[in-house]
Amino acid sequence: MTVTKVGVLGARGKVGTAICDAVRAADDMELVAEIDQGDALQSLVDSGAEVVVDFTHPDVVMPNLEFCVANGIHAVVGTTGFTEDRLDTLRGWLEASPGTGVLIAPNFAIGAILMMRFAVQAAKYFPSAEIIELHHPNKADAPSGTAHRTAAMMGQARADAGLGPSPDATSTGLDGARGADVDGVRVHSVRVTGLVAHQEVLLGTQGETLTIRHDSLDRTSFAPGVLLGVRQIANAPGLTVGLDSFMDL
Amino acid sequence: MTVTKVGVLGARGKVGTAICDAVRAADDMELVAEIDQGDALQSLVDSGAEVVVDFTHPDVVMPNLEFCVANGIHAVVGTTGFTEDRLDTLRGWLEASPGTGVLIAPNFAIGAILMMRFAVQAAKYFPSAEIIELHHPNKADAPSGTAHRTAAMMGQARADAGLGPSPDATSTGLDGARGADVDGVRVHSVRVTGLVAHQEVLLGTQGETLTIRHDSLDRTSFAPGVLLGVRQIANAPGLTVGLDSFMDL
Amino acid sequence: MTVTKVGVLGARGKVGTAICDAVRAADDMELVAEIDQGDALQSLVDSGAEVVVDFTHPDVVMPNLEFCVANGIHAVVGTTGFTEDRLDTLRGWLEASPGTGVLIAPNFAIGAILMMRFAVQAAKYFPSAEIIELHHPNKADAPSGTAHRTAAMMGQARADAGLGPSPDATSTGLDGARGADVDGVRVHSVRVTGLVAHQEVLLGTQGETLTIRHDSLDRTSFAPGVLLGVRQIANAPGLTVGLDSFMDL
Amino acid sequence: MTVTKVGVLGARGKVGTAICDAVRAADDMELVAEIDQGDALQSLVDSGAEVVVDFTHPDVVMPNLEFCVANGIHAVVGTTGFTEDRLDTLRGWLEASPGTGVLIAPNFAIGAILMMRFAVQAAKYFPSAEIIELHHPNKADAPSGTAHRTAAMMGQARADAGLGPSPDATSTGLDGARGADVDGVRVHSVRVTGLVAHQEVLLGTQGETLTIRHDSLDRTSFAPGVLLGVRQIANAPGLTVGLDSFMDL
Repeated sequence: MTVTKVGVLGARGKVGTAICDAVRAADDMELVAEIDQGDALQSLVDSGAEVVVDFTHPDVVMPNLEFCVANGIHAVVGTTGFTEDRLDTLRGWLEASPGTGVLIAPNFAIGAILMMRFAVQAAKYFPSAEIIELHHPNKADAPSGTAHRTAAMMGQARADAGLGPSPDATSTGLDGARGADVDGVRVHSVRVTGLVAHQEVLLGTQGETLTIRHDSLDRTSFAPGVLLGVRQIANAPGLTVGLDSFMDL
Repeated sequence: MTVTKVGVLGARGKVGTAICDAVRAADDMELVAEIDQGDALQSLVDSGAEVVVDFTHPDVVMPNLEFCVANGIHAVVGTTGFTEDRLDTLRGWLEASPGTGVLIAPNFAIGAILMMRFAVQAAKYFPSAEIIELHHPNKADAPSGTAHRTAAMMGQARADAGLGPSPDATSTGLDGARGADVDGVRVHSVRVTGLVAHQEVLLGTQGETLTIRHDSLDRTSFAPGVLLGVRQIANAPGLTVGLDSFMDL
Repeated sequence: MTVTKVGVLGARGKVGTAICDAVRAADDMELVAEIDQGDALQSLVDSGAEVVVDFTHPDVVMPNLEFCVANGIHAVVGTTGFTEDRLDTLRGWLEASPGTGVLIAPNFAIGAILMMRFAVQAAKYFPSAEIIELHHPNKADAPSGTAHRTAAMMGQARADAGLGPSPDATSTGLDGARGADVDGVRVHSVRVTGLVAHQEVLLGTQGETLTIRHDSLDRTSFAPGVLLGVRQIANAPGLTVGLDSFMDL
Repeated sequence: MTVTKVGVLGARGKVGTAICDAVRAADDMELVAEIDQGDALQSLVDSGAEVVVDFTHPDVVMPNLEFCVANGIHAVVGTTGFTEDRLDTLRGWLEASPGTGVLIAPNFAIGAILMMRFAVQAAKYFPSAEIIELHHPNKADAPSGTAHRTAAMMGQARADAGLGPSPDATSTGLDGARGADVDGVRVHSVRVTGLVAHQEVLLGTQGETLTIRHDSLDRTSFAPGVLLGVRQIANAPGLTVGLDSFMDL
């Protein structure tokens, strides 16, 4: 088995700590550098890191990536704030360093990625589609970003397939009972103490329904997806956006 | 085993047919009269019916019951349209025929009755409570009558226990995402082809949730409740409203 | 819109009746022939049928297909009993009639097909995978054929990806508690009155789970899949096995 | 509002810390003593504690309770290891200190208590009953203790009501598919990475099912039940076993 040398940026934050734990537990990886604010990036080179994981901050991620790409170190990035401008800059750096790969992903939870993928693939085969997302009551937005995105993609798939609106004979009722309408897909947001983060996509046709449900029960659910990224990035030179590009779907 | 002689009114309708089948299949009952429009009520007396089941129509149920009570035949009634006036009239007839019992129930589905009962009993122990009801898309009302009633009873139980509003930090979102508000309990109505009639009550407190779900998959789900009523009515002289009075809860 | 002329073989059986209803309700199809035992196949030709749907019996399906292929009529077939020998015979007939297509599918329920497909695609990304199938108590086999097949395909996908056994620290317990082992995937069979046919595939990794559930609530759930087959078969000359070949997955 | 003065024994353990947090957060309680190994029990008296919460160890709980009862301090106890002998000793102490109350409970999770209660209450109304319990794969026993207890109580309720065995036509299958048999109730144990602790009780009759599900998502789910015990214990002199005695069910 080849062992990949991995460096972690943002290693002392909550997320970074979980990533360091996951790298240490993986048989095919060695954790060679744990870097946080105030540490020199040069230790990535000195320790021979082949892949870097960056869950830091929009303010520092660009210099981090400039350094890594310049030194031929691949990067798996969960930091947010990537505008089209930033992606273009990154592409420029990567052109100058052929063979180096960078993965930028907004979501590393494999279960959530698969839920969205399957929901979109299935959408065109069912006249009815609704989403129920369930979260703890401290959440500020309703629907959740994931539910909104899922609904929009499903609505697009339905439109592309020429499906009309979902059947709905509701003629009397209370405001809000039928949820929010996102591109023709109804979304219901449940907020209940004790819940963490859950989403259910419900599809129906004559005599049968298909339900795709994702439950996130713990804040470390990004870790297996990060390891998946680390294992694939060396074979994907240039810029990749979205972990699903590395999944065989 | 005592065998109870049962007559069915409205015996040739869809519901009546299912009730006749259920009575025939019960070891402790004998189906002695199947009566529908145009048949003489007298055959109930002639056949020795001890209990009558009436799933007919508001227009004919009162004369039916007048005849039964006058002849000392107990009645289990699923016909709708009972106003307070009608119930008073019925009470008058029953006073004149001591020992005769009549059960009027809006719902004979045992699972639905238990779902509502448990939801109300549990309500005061959980800061959060929401309802998701799911039906086929031909349904006209949203929320369903059952969901509306469940929410109202749960809201009352919460108020009686001095619970404040369910926690909810939602500050941004889309209209309708958080469902309809029924006495402080949010209700979400899902309409999907292929579904029949389903309801889920979700209760949450620190670190745990309790879910009570009822699935009605077939239009004959009233039958076991009707048999339960037939078995108990002889021991309950006078007027009883609601099948839960006959359940040991 | 092009309208396809459709003939139905086995048109007076339960399944055939539902298919005739579905064809009649489809805007892009015309039901031109309803054939059952004792009717002449020639009326398929006389009525101009372009596609035939065959849900008949293993004893008669081969002569039916020989006639259709010889006359250049495409066929969508749900009849069972296709051995490799029969498929070879069929391929021979089709070679002699280029441009004619035959679809043989063991399962036309789109939701069930998607559940299996998604379960197999997802299998390699999760260390844990189990199946719960739930049916009415009159079912003779446990696990169900669908659950057995799903588990076997998931077990193969896990093996291909080099996954070891699912983690399981059970050291004490009761016989049967952990279900049946099908190629490393545990399968649990629930039999409860009131249920119809349901299956849940549960996949888990660190901090998250993905659940894919299919509910079949009604015996007509094959109809949308049959229509899908009718719409595609003219573009698929030769023999196709499995409706998923016609789905864009 | 009356404010109750509360002392916590075992205050520096994981569970004790969560209880101290919960007491501090409750408007109607004041945390006056946090005691752990090496601390003097006398500080309970000195601080004026009215109620003590004991989540310690079988080795020290008896001296703790002897001290509390002797000083007229009520106790809410989650420590395990109470034999009939120990309960008798405790009853003796309580007789000598009239007005003092002690609650011993094996389970403080309100959702789990309600799930069991409702499952047992409902059991006699449904011909079919099965249990699915789902846990993380590090669990040693299958079925779980809670599932085993629930099944045994449901089996008893079914027997008391004269119900025969659940219908089951299974005639062919794989070993273990139908789960473990606990007093006539089938129990299925699912072990999947990412899960915490979950249990689903499934009851079915003609055309409908009732599902009661408990999800424990976090190790602090005992806290609301402990507070409930603290609020009630002053009104329950003597020994009480089981938190459900304090619930209005």
